[in-house]
Amino acid sequence: MSKNEFPSELFLPLLQEANVPRYIALFRALRQSIIEGKLIAGAKLPASRPLAQSLKLSRNTVKSAFELLLAEGYIETRRGSGSFVSDSVCVAGPTANVIQNRPVTKSSAKLSNLAERLNWQSHHKVPYAKYLLEPAIPALAEFPWIKWQRAVNYAGRVMKHEMESSGLGSLQLRVQIASYLQVVRGVNCHENNILVFSGSQQAIYLSLQLLLDPGESVFVEEPCYFGIDGAVNAIGANKILIDIDQQGFNLKEEKQHQANLAVVTPSRNYPLGTTLSLQRRIALLQWAKDSGSWIIEDDYDSEFRFDGPPLTSLQGLDSAQRVIYAGTFSRILHPSIRIGYLVLPDQLVQPFSCAKALMQGNVSILPQLALAQFMAAGHFSSHVRRMRKLYHGRRNLLQELVAQYLCEYLTLVPSDGGMHCVYLLGAGYSDKVICQRARALGVGIKNLSDYYSSDNKSQGIVIGFAGFNEQQQRRAIRALESIFSEY
Amino acid sequence: MSKNEFPSELFLPLLQEANVPRYIALFRALRQSIIEGKLIAGAKLPASRPLAQSLKLSRNTVKSAFELLLAEGYIETRRGSGSFVSDSVCVAGPTANVIQNRPVTKSSAKLSNLAERLNWQSHHKVPYAKYLLEPAIPALAEFPWIKWQRAVNYAGRVMKHEMESSGLGSLQLRVQIASYLQVVRGVNCHENNILVFSGSQQAIYLSLQLLLDPGESVFVEEPCYFGIDGAVNAIGANKILIDIDQQGFNLKEEKQHQANLAVVTPSRNYPLGTTLSLQRRIALLQWAKDSGSWIIEDDYDSEFRFDGPPLTSLQGLDSAQRVIYAGTFSRILHPSIRIGYLVLPDQLVQPFSCAKALMQGNVSILPQLALAQFMAAGHFSSHVRRMRKLYHGRRNLLQELVAQYLCEYLTLVPSDGGMHCVYLLGAGYSDKVICQRARALGVGIKNLSDYYSSDNKSQGIVIGFAGFNEQQQRRAIRALESIFSEY
Repeated sequence: MSKNEFPSELFLPLLQEANVPRYIALFRALRQSIIEGKLIAGAKLPASRPLAQSLKLSRNTVKSAFELLLAEGYIETRRGSGSFVSDSVCVAGPTANVIQNRPVTKSSAKLSNLAERLNWQSHHKVPYAKYLLEPAIPALAEFPWIKWQRAVNYAGRVMKHEMESSGLGSLQLRVQIASYLQVVRGVNCHENNILVFSGSQQAIYLSLQLLLDPGESVFVEEPCYFGIDGAVNAIGANKILIDIDQQGFNLKEEKQHQANLAVVTPSRNYPLGTTLSLQRRIALLQWAKDSGSWIIEDDYDSEFRFDGPPLTSLQGLDSAQRVIYAGTFSRILHPSIRIGYLVLPDQLVQPFSCAKALMQGNVSILPQLALAQFMAAGHFSSHVRRMRKLYHGRRNLLQELVAQYLCEYLTLVPSDGGMHCVYLLGAGYSDKVICQRARALGVGIKNLSDYYSSDNKSQGIVIGFAGFNEQQQRRAIRALESIFSEY
Repeated sequence: MSKNEFPSELFLPLLQEANVPRYIALFRALRQSIIEGKLIAGAKLPASRPLAQSLKLSRNTVKSAFELLLAEGYIETRRGSGSFVSDSVCVAGPTANVIQNRPVTKSSAKLSNLAERLNWQSHHKVPYAKYLLEPAIPALAEFPWIKWQRAVNYAGRVMKHEMESSGLGSLQLRVQIASYLQVVRGVNCHENNILVFSGSQQAIYLSLQLLLDPGESVFVEEPCYFGIDGAVNAIGANKILIDIDQQGFNLKEEKQHQANLAVVTPSRNYPLGTTLSLQRRIALLQWAKDSGSWIIEDDYDSEFRFDGPPLTSLQGLDSAQRVIYAGTFSRILHPSIRIGYLVLPDQLVQPFSCAKALMQGNVSILPQLALAQFMAAGHFSSHVRRMRKLYHGRRNLLQELVAQYLCEYLTLVPSDGGMHCVYLLGAGYSDKVICQRARALGVGIKNLSDYYSSDNKSQGIVIGFAGFNEQQQRRAIRALESIFSEY
């Protein structure tokens, strides 16, 4: 191609670029041709007027495009003689199709070992409430949106006066959380021991990051929640499984020296729903105190205890500051609120808040202020009370329906509350198969075996009731009945 | 102490417990006495009526306290003969003062190596806008709060219909970000390549986590931003420092094989403000393409280019999907909004979104919807235009004031925009000392040497102008003048 010939195909891309200003489209088209070598170094560009005419563009459009090219060093102007493709461009040779949608280069997908360890996690990202009887779904329809909206409007008004500098989270919110935890959960805490997160998952992940080195060992409940299992795997830590029996987490003498960290759900094991007995609580705290170990207490929905008042948290019994208490509002209130927190022993507050600032950043102030206002106005506790009553009824309904239609297939695992029930399957049934078939019928129950890490899995199903009314429950149970009868 | 004697000191705590219901205070007092062994196993508790009378509490208060004790297994009732301290409690022996504020056990503060690496980070947590001329502070007073409030109210209304399930962030927001980046930053992106974070810091940290293994090497600019340096240290990666010269990041032939990841600020090096030249951009992309390496482009405030239109992003020139583009709204809009994002190559979208869900969680939907609405209404781009004009003026003012009062001490490092200016110090001055003295006078300039990792540090000061009006600038410059003249 001769130096001064001006390629017409240059302008085809112009037509393709929608919703982009003309001068940028022209700029990109010219830039592409330069980088691709269609316009070689030293090539003279046409003057703006004739080019504008030939392209049916305003002259200013062309001028702006040239200014951009000049600004980015693609062209240079020589006084009196116009614009030329600059010599510096072709140094590295042509790199092809800059503007087109680029092909994925599957080849060099070099990721860290951490990333590789995580990939299997993907299938846990399920859209909320898409399936009936899905566990961990609150009664979304019951959420007091109007009251929430008022709290949000308030937050929008006051947030200009709020500059988060502590790195812990909104002071207003931490004060609300502290007084709530003291009264309802028997947690010993001051607002300056609270660190706000956007959910308890990353609160627990950060804790593991800061308390565990890769290869170190940690006590994990068997069975346990996906998120905790996933976080431990992400750290690359060595899981030591502790079986859950009728009294909960059973840390036997001979194992106690094998790890310095335990992740537990004392109020109600996830998913089995077993409560850690008082004896075991005291023994566990004694172990932590004597061995200088840490305990992470995941207290995800203990508000919903139907057979009596909520139990005191494990943290509330801890006299040695060994317990890191994790809570969340996603399950009690609404998943979209995305606020969780840690209650930290004094000595962990500074390292945890530094690490959070660097690795996860502060939580947006807006939802924090809204939630603080929502709690201060008393809407939170009244909503919890309403939901406890509602869920109690829904649980009883579910158990009646199961007793009525599925009793020959299912055996209830007793629990004093929560948002789901666990049923064991009779011999000869695969819970995986049941749940796959249920899903095909729009029922989102989970198979119990998935929550076990060892091969010693129980076969059962986890049925969420909190988010589903009578009509939905009946429809789902009928579907399950059909699955079992055809099994 | 005899079995049936009832200790009176038991009830002292009652008086101390403010803002806690009486029955809980009583419950805690009794529980404490039981755990501390003041009430030994088998001890009979007084009946509720006489106890209520002696404590001047209602009988129901006492009953509720007993119910809690019963529920948690501290006492048991024997039909007809009343309540007794249960035998199971003392198993692990007494654990002291459960309720009092507990002493910090500095002893066994076992943290992970990651945590140890992070501790030094603490001193970077500076409260926003507390000091004059602090870098990276936008013009907070100029933020259009009323328009933002309207967007927030809208978000509060519509959020009930939004259930984030993609794991990427609000679709509405991603659409807004994508079209903005395409037009203004020349970024090649689709909304499904965008992953929303609560700031760019953790976006970059996550990228490093997923692209680097501990001990692996990464190219980092010398000097560079604290947050990037800190994140690399947190990963435990091996920093290879690449000097910034007049053309920016200078990756020499002989070094190119030493790492497969580069973290760069091509639009404007932080803090020097140097722009990466076109030649170097093309060479850098070529390196990434040939070696299958990744480039993280941190594009933190390129909107504020005063001497011409914003430059196209490096990502926009990338034909091989090797660039991870990171942006944030904290600096352009307001730090409290806490929203940043990554634009990811196709092959990284799935692993990154999985990892984020597990390790950082979704960003609260509320600020995302508010920002999306704010952008859709055009408030974002008009605010950016206004600030560009304002900051341009403030920069010129700063440079005039320095020329007028400090020219004998300071030499400007040229830059085409941004929110701060860098000045080099004459020989014989320590920038650390200057900045300490400045801070004492309420001036928050930063010392340039802090941004260097090697011993080959330049002595200079980083002066933020964006957030400070003429009066503030004059006051601060006078303070600096006094410091220099007395040096």
